[in-house]
Amino acid sequence: MKNQKPSLSIIKIGGKLVEDEQNLKSTLEQFAKIKGSKILVHGGGKSATAWSEKLGLTPKMIEGRRVTDLATLDVVTMVYAGLYNKKIVSMLQAIPCNALGLTGADLNSIQSHKRIVKDIDYGFAGDIDFVETSILQQLLNNDVTPVFCAITHDKNGQLLNTNADTIASELAVALAPFYKTTLKFCFEKNGVLKNPEDDNSFFEKINFKDFQKYKHIGIISEGMIPKMDNAFFALKNKVDEVFICGSKAIHDQNGTLIQL
Amino acid sequence: MKNQKPSLSIIKIGGKLVEDEQNLKSTLEQFAKIKGSKILVHGGGKSATAWSEKLGLTPKMIEGRRVTDLATLDVVTMVYAGLYNKKIVSMLQAIPCNALGLTGADLNSIQSHKRIVKDIDYGFAGDIDFVETSILQQLLNNDVTPVFCAITHDKNGQLLNTNADTIASELAVALAPFYKTTLKFCFEKNGVLKNPEDDNSFFEKINFKDFQKYKHIGIISEGMIPKMDNAFFALKNKVDEVFICGSKAIHDQNGTLIQL
Repeated sequence: MKNQKPSLSIIKIGGKLVEDEQNLKSTLEQFAKIKGSKILVHGGGKSATAWSEKLGLTPKMIEGRRVTDLATLDVVTMVYAGLYNKKIVSMLQAIPCNALGLTGADLNSIQSHKRIVKDIDYGFAGDIDFVETSILQQLLNNDVTPVFCAITHDKNGQLLNTNADTIASELAVALAPFYKTTLKFCFEKNGVLKNPEDDNSFFEKINFKDFQKYKHIGIISEGMIPKMDNAFFALKNKVDEVFICGSKAIHDQNGTLIQL
Repeated sequence: MKNQKPSLSIIKIGGKLVEDEQNLKSTLEQFAKIKGSKILVHGGGKSATAWSEKLGLTPKMIEGRRVTDLATLDVVTMVYAGLYNKKIVSMLQAIPCNALGLTGADLNSIQSHKRIVKDIDYGFAGDIDFVETSILQQLLNNDVTPVFCAITHDKNGQLLNTNADTIASELAVALAPFYKTTLKFCFEKNGVLKNPEDDNSFFEKINFKDFQKYKHIGIISEGMIPKMDNAFFALKNKVDEVFICGSKAIHDQNGTLIQL
């Protein structure tokens, strides 16, 4: 049965892969080469910080996550859903790849709720409730390539800032019953590095037990931890394959294979 | 044959209907009540000017049209395709109305070319070449409501700033062979006014000969002239009905009926 499912690649791109125009161009060319159904998810966080500062706002981060007040929500909506999403869609159309830019509000594709305040009030940050898979399947069946940015909504008229890695893993989990699903978190490094100074020192594979060990001794730290949490969340919820890798690995299998 | 075609309403909203949040909310509630297939097209021009100024750019207008350099293109893409388009989509989803925000780049729905320089160089302004009607028909058949902002692309990776009234009339013309099509240009006035000081002085109907006469004697002037040019363009190209009206007329027939 498993082998009868069509394939789906969900590729998340972030950091310099998005923000540097030349990098973005070659990344999108790699992405467009993927055979079968595919979905792109993009970040743009550092650039949102730069735009916030240009507009006189002071970006506020707690534990690597953005605190989104209303003014900041406007900026991230403009930068993610406007500037980067539409730039990416137009670049994909030129290759050609029939892209459709989406937030979670469009087609009510990803519904979330405003994060409940426990210790920290992250403001207008969204935690995902569900993915509307039927409309995404229809689009994929029509050879449309959805391109998601990091904005969702609560179905009550409120847009919400939502982590792009989380969007990618939730999409993969929701679509895994229907597709043989590969999820790749792509960024400017070649994978999960043993030595942060050496881009060729990436693990070929890493499992949950190793992850706990390397986290404990500090080899895996900072932003890589939530990324790996998203990777394990996907694997535990029946996503077939998960990689953390560079853009050159988008349509092959280099980079770090994450295993349970 | 004509009566067998399904109905389609194309509603363009601009000015204060978009930029004032309370006005926008009531306008979208009127819009969502329309029976049958519908498409929304929105501007946001004054707000783009305000955001440009916040970012230290000096907006440049010639004969009421924006000159779009690359920095300005980024701003209008952020404001139209990001801020307003996604705010509108999330507000429609709450009503509920299953909205999908689009630029012309998304699904390659509206392809244009950079305006050819004659006397004036408008920069990255797009003149429309064609509308991809088959994908729009598929969306409408699935009860999806497309929401277009004033951005198109050239299919070579370049986004282009495109007049929202023109997008509305080009959509209406392209879809008129398949639908009984009504096109309404909605703004903060109740219609085409005989006396600009009196909002109740709107013409009930106006034809091309009257338009020429009123334009000549200065009763119709400034921004109303290109709007009426778009209205007549639509009528001459088989769009069934065209109105210029206020937001209260979105789902009835008050306002100014334009006739050949």
